[in-house]
Amino acid sequence: MDVITKVNEMQTRVLSIKDRKKSIGFVPTMGALHEGHVSLIRSARKENNKLIVSIYLNPTQFDNEDDFNNYPRQMDKDIEIVERENADLVFAPGTKELYPEGFCTYVTQDKLTDSLCGRLRPGHFNGVTTIVTKLFNIIKPDRAYFGQKDYQQTVVIKRLVADLNMDIDVRVLPIVRDEDGLAISSRNKRLNPEERQNALCIYSSLSKAKSVFASNIKDSKEIIEEMTSIIKKTKNIKIDYVSIVDPNTLENVSSINGKAVATVAVWIGNTRLIDNIILE
Amino acid sequence: MDVITKVNEMQTRVLSIKDRKKSIGFVPTMGALHEGHVSLIRSARKENNKLIVSIYLNPTQFDNEDDFNNYPRQMDKDIEIVERENADLVFAPGTKELYPEGFCTYVTQDKLTDSLCGRLRPGHFNGVTTIVTKLFNIIKPDRAYFGQKDYQQTVVIKRLVADLNMDIDVRVLPIVRDEDGLAISSRNKRLNPEERQNALCIYSSLSKAKSVFASNIKDSKEIIEEMTSIIKKTKNIKIDYVSIVDPNTLENVSSINGKAVATVAVWIGNTRLIDNIILE
Repeated sequence: MDVITKVNEMQTRVLSIKDRKKSIGFVPTMGALHEGHVSLIRSARKENNKLIVSIYLNPTQFDNEDDFNNYPRQMDKDIEIVERENADLVFAPGTKELYPEGFCTYVTQDKLTDSLCGRLRPGHFNGVTTIVTKLFNIIKPDRAYFGQKDYQQTVVIKRLVADLNMDIDVRVLPIVRDEDGLAISSRNKRLNPEERQNALCIYSSLSKAKSVFASNIKDSKEIIEEMTSIIKKTKNIKIDYVSIVDPNTLENVSSINGKAVATVAVWIGNTRLIDNIILE
Repeated sequence: MDVITKVNEMQTRVLSIKDRKKSIGFVPTMGALHEGHVSLIRSARKENNKLIVSIYLNPTQFDNEDDFNNYPRQMDKDIEIVERENADLVFAPGTKELYPEGFCTYVTQDKLTDSLCGRLRPGHFNGVTTIVTKLFNIIKPDRAYFGQKDYQQTVVIKRLVADLNMDIDVRVLPIVRDEDGLAISSRNKRLNPEERQNALCIYSSLSKAKSVFASNIKDSKEIIEEMTSIIKKTKNIKIDYVSIVDPNTLENVSSINGKAVATVAVWIGNTRLIDNIILE
């Protein structure tokens, strides 16, 4: 398995794969790989001839310098994981390679990025859509894999691919959870034992949403109140949002008609965590 | 020669061309084809196995509704011209096909678009970079052809291709002029005989720039004064800008060191015309 750091070398490798008419599965990551990433990598491995994983901690999608500086970094371990999962290539470019001097082109989105994390993390999704467009253009995947945990991101990227007429199948895979329900996230590494325990209220609130909805309550306000009361019982936690939204437009729904997404963002100490569950 | 109006049909055709490992030359146009377009089409025809021409009057790059409404339209004649030049395919989609409901993704640029036409036509270049990205993703050309008349556009598109890591060779071809020097433009059709005569001052001013520069005067202010005085002698003309800029950054240069671009935008009655000349 080769680790490629230069854009033009990656483009040459991709051209050679395409020339041999092999399909490419692509898993873009920011490193600090965990079981969630591994589930994406395994699906990509199964569904494609060639598997490429990128590891790049993209500074332009961080709205908060502390978050960027404290984001876990473990390149050697990440490469070991990817190699164990039989990837063909790792793309791990430096920032000067992706954003050379004079760089001034951005991919932006409105509407879908006005709510939820987009509202609270200004510039975040423009960073995501720009880097994902660049990586898609370099890797030219047939299929690209994303986790449902970043629900808004999956909607944003599906829309990006449709709006800019990219020929890419965006595959969204289920959230991977620890045994006690906490959604696996690179940022979980920053939680101390007490914070780790407090974080369980996120999944409790989502499970509550599911059971209340199953009992035939469709009123979002009522469900959100139940969710919020669970989170508020927990110490040292700050709610960014508890929302029930349309799965496609991400707009708040007042009464659930068909399918909706219950979605939560909270601060536990200095760590921001997000999670969601589909109600249908 | 087939005229394709659907994005997915165009994508299927392109896939089939790519499968046979044929190169694609692409000339994006807004229709109202003239000798300038024909020179692009002929170069694309020579340099590639397959030639695709798009005809689409893109509303999102017009900052002025009157300009959009009055822009010349002649689809049947355009298709005749393209067929005569032996194109393989014409792509002529409707607006709903390119901007379906819910469309919300845009490609934007700063710096390069802050000056010249970008400053005077807010939103214009975002319309250009967005539609060109979409067309490039649909057509997947090896080479794409643009005219030097829209000098700022050529710089913007080269930067777009580099920044978003598109594998496309952007070819810029010289300005085609009428015998009296007027740069050929679709908007020339809107000039009445008197306006057509007045418009000659544009090329006169650029020729003056060239001769003054050739006489070893490198001071932009001095050259611009000579250019401006020629234009100001003409009746019923309004200057948008007369500038001398760096060929890559498009920033004003005060003293020409090596290469620069003298560039002019004027209103003749209700018609805005642009032109430029390279000083080197």
